[in-house]
Amino acid sequence: MSTQRDGLAARDLPPRVTSALEAFFASRGPLVEPIGPTYATAVARLEAFVLSGGKRVRPMFAWLGWTAAGGEPSGPGAEQVVTACAALELVQACALIHDDIIDNSDTRRGRPTVHVGFAADHSASKWAGSADRFGMAAGIICGDLALAWADDMFSGSGVPGPAMARARPVWAAMRTEVLGGQLLDIVAEASGDGRRGTAELINRFKTAAYTVERPLHLGAELAGADSQLIEDLRGFGAAIGVAFQLRDDLLGVFGDPAVTGKPSGDDLIEGKRTELLARALDHGDQHDPSAATRLRALLGRELPAGEIDEARAILHDLGAVRAIEARITSLTERALAILEPSSMTAGPKRQLQEMALSGAHRDH
Amino acid sequence: MSTQRDGLAARDLPPRVTSALEAFFASRGPLVEPIGPTYATAVARLEAFVLSGGKRVRPMFAWLGWTAAGGEPSGPGAEQVVTACAALELVQACALIHDDIIDNSDTRRGRPTVHVGFAADHSASKWAGSADRFGMAAGIICGDLALAWADDMFSGSGVPGPAMARARPVWAAMRTEVLGGQLLDIVAEASGDGRRGTAELINRFKTAAYTVERPLHLGAELAGADSQLIEDLRGFGAAIGVAFQLRDDLLGVFGDPAVTGKPSGDDLIEGKRTELLARALDHGDQHDPSAATRLRALLGRELPAGEIDEARAILHDLGAVRAIEARITSLTERALAILEPSSMTAGPKRQLQEMALSGAHRDH
Repeated sequence: MSTQRDGLAARDLPPRVTSALEAFFASRGPLVEPIGPTYATAVARLEAFVLSGGKRVRPMFAWLGWTAAGGEPSGPGAEQVVTACAALELVQACALIHDDIIDNSDTRRGRPTVHVGFAADHSASKWAGSADRFGMAAGIICGDLALAWADDMFSGSGVPGPAMARARPVWAAMRTEVLGGQLLDIVAEASGDGRRGTAELINRFKTAAYTVERPLHLGAELAGADSQLIEDLRGFGAAIGVAFQLRDDLLGVFGDPAVTGKPSGDDLIEGKRTELLARALDHGDQHDPSAATRLRALLGRELPAGEIDEARAILHDLGAVRAIEARITSLTERALAILEPSSMTAGPKRQLQEMALSGAHRDH
Repeated sequence: MSTQRDGLAARDLPPRVTSALEAFFASRGPLVEPIGPTYATAVARLEAFVLSGGKRVRPMFAWLGWTAAGGEPSGPGAEQVVTACAALELVQACALIHDDIIDNSDTRRGRPTVHVGFAADHSASKWAGSADRFGMAAGIICGDLALAWADDMFSGSGVPGPAMARARPVWAAMRTEVLGGQLLDIVAEASGDGRRGTAELINRFKTAAYTVERPLHLGAELAGADSQLIEDLRGFGAAIGVAFQLRDDLLGVFGDPAVTGKPSGDDLIEGKRTELLARALDHGDQHDPSAATRLRALLGRELPAGEIDEARAILHDLGAVRAIEARITSLTERALAILEPSSMTAGPKRQLQEMALSGAHRDH
């Protein structure tokens, strides 16, 4: 009990998630082996990718939702909940593998992306045709497998039927929302849609709902939370999820490469359509068109350090940095104000408070 | 009752499947609409694709499995089973949409493929970047949505818990198997692996298990069939599923374009690694190496009619056509021999017999 109250159980979660994922992959052997070593090798690549994922953010929020609603971390039924929460990592594996194909990304977590790994196999084997197209094809299939297995793992978690029946609509909403957010993102990028409303929708569905709000909601439904507690957790998650993304957007332009691990001004070079940028362009178009024009000219191409600094200065001058910082503060305050009177258990409440504060003010 | 005995209920199935799919898409509105019109338009494209699918082969076999094990087509609970069976069409939508990206196919069912449709939107809107890459990206996301929704539809079918618990491992096996078959297929094509064993594995998992055996098995589990009946249906499905594919392989080389709707000698031009081809090359390598060499030279490129005829003649001369015809006959006989003493209900049994005979001897 004291473990739960101190929130330590949540910090113990990542290794339990990893164990649940290992057990799930082991359980797939009898299905995979008859299909032969080629498939088994691809599955091993998927497994290595999933097991190398570090922070287990989504399972952690689901677990916090469950414990916040009274779930006992070492009580009977807890392992089944860990398994259901861990299934979120397989949804995320699909999202990352397919995103890396869509974005044509070569590396992730300092290693070759899954499709690039398959392409390298193709080249090393001197096979016919394009290695890149083979990598894409195998990566699509591998991501599909992760998505299908996410459902198998969730459905087969052993969580009792009534809890599963409560949680399943949340599971469905989360997948539908994140795919919607991804689609909006690629359409916004292609169409050059830099409107604030579009950036807000993408942040809401691609990040906040998928990463924080729905995992908390899922956990709370697994625990049979009442509707007020669910509303609290969702409200907290929606606010803090957007705040996290806005902090990411600031770090993507102003972050220290030595701390973030990303190139300086990365989001500018990629031309990423963030809320930060949308606010700057909105304001510039109305009050300082030449600054807006110059900012647009600094997006989506390699920039020397001097031009990165120039873009940063424009974002400051147009008031966008101040506006985003104010919004992060207001979202964090809203989230904390929701927590304060909430009926959730003490340990998870404290942990969510800490996460809200550290997430909003982090430097990486 | 007489409807069921006559198998008419199975012929009535396609419109019921379409209705179930329409109802499912309608039920998604409240999830999709908040994400905005861009997503709703993409979902409408997926819906049009799913609703335009004609034969509903996999739901039909699942339904036959259910009725063969005593399920009543107009009894209570039948609509829920129709919905569970119809969910197979969403798995198939994902498989087709992603396969068309992998194969770089421009048309399907005489219409632009899904990714080509998205690419055309991109071009028509004069958006930035590559229309082809945008089409691929949107197609990947759309296929993912179909796969996620397949699970939502299956899980939300309303089939009672115990039946769902029996059917779920079959549902899991089917998705794992078809993705394995697809992976083997692209690896065999890239690596030029023309071995018979590989072609047999691909036929078994990509086609027979996915299209016939597992749908029959799924339906039988939904109905609570006993283990002997399940063994019968699976044995029938595995045999007839491979026979169907072998007939397809023959039609892919020898079929009349006016009847099949595909170009003459299509599989030769694509260089498709079929069991037909594997047998010819196996035999040629051992007994007539120059014929094997010539056949290899006729694969995977545009062929004038004279060379298509030459390849056909070599396939005949090397005994591959006769061997495949004999295998179709033997598989069909085995399938019918399994049906004969089986305890399944009379109408579905007769319908499966008819399907086995007509499928093995069809000309398109």
